[in-house]
Amino acid sequence: MTSAPLPPNSQTPTIGVFDSGFGGLTVLRALAERLPQARYAFVGDTARLPYGSKSRRTIARYAVQSAQFLVREQGAEFLVIACNTASALALDAIQDAVPVPVLGVIQPGAQAARAASHSGDVLVIATDATVHSHAYSAACQALGLRAIEKACPLLVPLVEEGWTSHPVTSEVIEVYLNELRAQAASAGFRPDTLVLGCTHYPLIRPLIEQAVTPGVRVIDSAESTAETALAMFGSHFAPALPGQKPELHFYATDSIEKFERLGSHFLGRPVGKVHLIDLGG
Amino acid sequence: MTSAPLPPNSQTPTIGVFDSGFGGLTVLRALAERLPQARYAFVGDTARLPYGSKSRRTIARYAVQSAQFLVREQGAEFLVIACNTASALALDAIQDAVPVPVLGVIQPGAQAARAASHSGDVLVIATDATVHSHAYSAACQALGLRAIEKACPLLVPLVEEGWTSHPVTSEVIEVYLNELRAQAASAGFRPDTLVLGCTHYPLIRPLIEQAVTPGVRVIDSAESTAETALAMFGSHFAPALPGQKPELHFYATDSIEKFERLGSHFLGRPVGKVHLIDLGG
Repeated sequence: MTSAPLPPNSQTPTIGVFDSGFGGLTVLRALAERLPQARYAFVGDTARLPYGSKSRRTIARYAVQSAQFLVREQGAEFLVIACNTASALALDAIQDAVPVPVLGVIQPGAQAARAASHSGDVLVIATDATVHSHAYSAACQALGLRAIEKACPLLVPLVEEGWTSHPVTSEVIEVYLNELRAQAASAGFRPDTLVLGCTHYPLIRPLIEQAVTPGVRVIDSAESTAETALAMFGSHFAPALPGQKPELHFYATDSIEKFERLGSHFLGRPVGKVHLIDLGG
Repeated sequence: MTSAPLPPNSQTPTIGVFDSGFGGLTVLRALAERLPQARYAFVGDTARLPYGSKSRRTIARYAVQSAQFLVREQGAEFLVIACNTASALALDAIQDAVPVPVLGVIQPGAQAARAASHSGDVLVIATDATVHSHAYSAACQALGLRAIEKACPLLVPLVEEGWTSHPVTSEVIEVYLNELRAQAASAGFRPDTLVLGCTHYPLIRPLIEQAVTPGVRVIDSAESTAETALAMFGSHFAPALPGQKPELHFYATDSIEKFERLGSHFLGRPVGKVHLIDLGG
């Protein structure tokens, strides 16, 4: 996870947070709750989303451009890749491209599953590209877990349509989870943990909780990533003052208005001003 | 670019067809049925789809790059913009950028609605960006029609998930059409025509036909565009030989495998080899 020695201590180091869109704001929200004394710069590469349907080569090129913007232009001393697809397919490329510690969302999600699971059998739902990378399977296997992954391509559009408590969304979740349960049963799995492997899914967590088999624990990789970041980066920050509000800066490559309008649902408060940047392409 | 330009041939001029993805293959299919004696070069800008959520500036830049590839590298003498979003937002930019006749899908859709509608009140369903451009409203108004447009962002992902006859898709269509009917009623409309303003929608036309108010006619802008192309370009081609099969060439900027796998549903036959091209970005 760490690709370079930690930089010198400072009063308010910047944590760069990157996503293909604004789903990663669920990760920023979880981070800001735990480290309100940090300065945050968030990039949403909205001109080129969704990454979920693109190739590894293309995703790596896009993700490296965003990471370099955060480090070179924003002075980020830590990077959080708040995008499952980019974490799955481009973490190595990003670590090679920037001289700061880089944390993705896959490893923390797998670690949280490890802590939660008694049976050692884990289910993961995510986008197409994340599933096809088998990054969660590999991370789980390295921790002694067995994992079955399932692509759920309709869930992101449903969240972005605002149907976060719509009966159709519950039905779609039911279809996907039934297919996943059948797959797990035929592989002889006894799953007790479900990892939400996409930063959009926390917004429909209540519907997912209702649909899982009773006793199955739901792991939100946004929360797990923020916990890991706290452990990795926390000591570099001065203690938070009581009631301290984090300094947040937002950048996007397109669709500023949509980011400002929808982003608040993910961040849990108004996003405010989003600055347009051009990363090329 | 991986492919060398072919010299123009007066016997078999090339029609360049462009889409952000492979939905435009429904337009190519309709074209190839009517002009099997043409050579076709199709570009899907799959690295940068979907256009539907991007800004006019970005869409115009992307679309012009694809149009220039088709004209400069493929020798296209006619261009069909088989993408509603690009037709709505970038037709002028493309016409300024290339020296060949350019046909979009909006105008033919509006003309077909004009021919079909008795009440003069028309409904249009499309992507977010197409609706926000109000290109269909403007084109309809210019023909003396009143139009109400409705964005249906979930329909493309449902088609791409292959749920083209799934009950969930019918439910989503029902939700959207109910909202549209309520909007039309409150505006005092008496609609008798529904335009499918997205190249993905022909694949769920049977479900849409089931959901419309009885008596409302469904217009497929892919079909209308092919009819208009025949009228505009047809005289430049030698007559088709009996049973002639069109010469088809496919290019995409990413996700070749997905294009080859899913494209056949849109084209109505196997797509075969798709060539990867790099348009920058």
